[in-house]
Amino acid sequence: MQDVSKGAAWMGGNIIPISDAAVSVTDWGVTHSDIGYDVVPVWKGAFFRLNDYLDRFMASVHALRFDIGVDADAVADILHDMVSASGLQNAYVAMVAARGRNPIPGSRDPRDCNNHFYAWCVPYVHIVSPDQADQGTSVWIAKSVRRIPQDSVNPKVKNYHWGDFTSGLFEAKDKGFETTLLLDHEGNVTEGPGFNAFAVYGDRVVTSDHGVLHGITRATVLDMCREHGLRVETRPLPLEEFWHADEVFLSSSGGGVIPVAKVDDRTFSNGAAGPVASRLRATYFEGLEKDHLRTPVRSHGGMTETA
Amino acid sequence: MQDVSKGAAWMGGNIIPISDAAVSVTDWGVTHSDIGYDVVPVWKGAFFRLNDYLDRFMASVHALRFDIGVDADAVADILHDMVSASGLQNAYVAMVAARGRNPIPGSRDPRDCNNHFYAWCVPYVHIVSPDQADQGTSVWIAKSVRRIPQDSVNPKVKNYHWGDFTSGLFEAKDKGFETTLLLDHEGNVTEGPGFNAFAVYGDRVVTSDHGVLHGITRATVLDMCREHGLRVETRPLPLEEFWHADEVFLSSSGGGVIPVAKVDDRTFSNGAAGPVASRLRATYFEGLEKDHLRTPVRSHGGMTETA
Repeated sequence: MQDVSKGAAWMGGNIIPISDAAVSVTDWGVTHSDIGYDVVPVWKGAFFRLNDYLDRFMASVHALRFDIGVDADAVADILHDMVSASGLQNAYVAMVAARGRNPIPGSRDPRDCNNHFYAWCVPYVHIVSPDQADQGTSVWIAKSVRRIPQDSVNPKVKNYHWGDFTSGLFEAKDKGFETTLLLDHEGNVTEGPGFNAFAVYGDRVVTSDHGVLHGITRATVLDMCREHGLRVETRPLPLEEFWHADEVFLSSSGGGVIPVAKVDDRTFSNGAAGPVASRLRATYFEGLEKDHLRTPVRSHGGMTETA
Repeated sequence: MQDVSKGAAWMGGNIIPISDAAVSVTDWGVTHSDIGYDVVPVWKGAFFRLNDYLDRFMASVHALRFDIGVDADAVADILHDMVSASGLQNAYVAMVAARGRNPIPGSRDPRDCNNHFYAWCVPYVHIVSPDQADQGTSVWIAKSVRRIPQDSVNPKVKNYHWGDFTSGLFEAKDKGFETTLLLDHEGNVTEGPGFNAFAVYGDRVVTSDHGVLHGITRATVLDMCREHGLRVETRPLPLEEFWHADEVFLSSSGGGVIPVAKVDDRTFSNGAAGPVASRLRATYFEGLEKDHLRTPVRSHGGMTETA
């Protein structure tokens, strides 16, 4: 068997090394970024909130009018087989639906395309290194770009339209910041590349409900906040209000809760990870091991390798 | 030699059949639609305005901060070799720069990625069938989406962020229209999937200069308009003003000038191709054969096939 220990993909019924997994240059998934996807984390040998991610993925597939020939149960089976084959115990697991190629020469009708499903997994991704997250990371508010509005591309359908994020990331990296946060056209804080953002005011936590992905980690965090006795407000978050936060943090399936110590030239929580964010961060990683949200990866007959 | 008569690609120094050309599923070109591209037409064995397309492509490469290891001359050589190998006399020729894979596990820094260049060609694409274009095509003004604003993703850098176009195309096809035209957030007519739009009022021609690709075919058309004694206005074009046009037409490197007979429930130029648009359409195809704008495809030692 080929080496899939650095990552595996499922394409057309086969499990292959991640390095061999590719999409046609004429697939609308490439030429029109016509793709809906989702990413479920695997932690210590189990999927976390698998059904929630599958539900959101299938909702994206439906919204984009893809006919991918697999339902949620079949996708789950594929993810189990693929992750099991890879032997990865902690993994970033992507499920992807693409418009595919248009078999009719010259046709511009999206309904003619051969839609398809594929999946891939690699070792667990921290969008910010755990060390830096523990200390509080740095965030740059992008100045040259605004988040793509929700009436242009629906952010609730997880998609690969990241041009605005990438412009913001270049700005951030050039300025020595770890990541970027984008404003909408009304000056509200929205989201960054792969994460939602939160502001803490005493016992209140505010995060946008507008122009952002409704992250599953975001939902987990809001649940944790309520359990910690914090009041939750989901609504547009003006930048002016954001600046007055006691603490700021991010949420992502790639790292859970990520405290922020600095935004632009302003420090929060004395330039360190704040107490509320740090507590939520610890609770999140404890929660990843809670049985009722975990689906252990099923080993697949004869294909399992150990990490 | 492999069969490249249905299309060819150049990847990593090799000319391969189009059906074999693929991009890694973890390339940022796929996962972040982090790609700049351009398309030059080949007509009757010659590139049309090759240097203009190369200049725009290299400007996109620069704007997106790609380091692709080839300059305009090297790209031209690649395109000549590839098209020559395919034997195609009329072709749609794409040159593509992609961010590539990030070799550092978990890195979200775009500066770490291995940028790369590839190219591909297929038989010439008409975005609207020539028969339908001759008669005047039909266009649906998208209602569910607005064009991605220029301060989110720069439309002058030709890119694959087509989610808004694809939503509009589904609307159009469901209503029985050929293609779609998008408004900006201020209610101005912008562009459609692969084309610019023009409105004719007597001897005046208006097209947007705002939130749109500055198409090379658009520039060719504006030159032709001036030669035909028409006055040209490039400025925002409010939908209200658009409705009062005598004629409407589109421009694209995939079909030149395309007359429009119907937009939503409204007919233009008596439901047929208008006289100004028809004249420009004929002039465009004559222009494709003008020597001073043509660069004949150089045959490549031993690799040339005839179509």
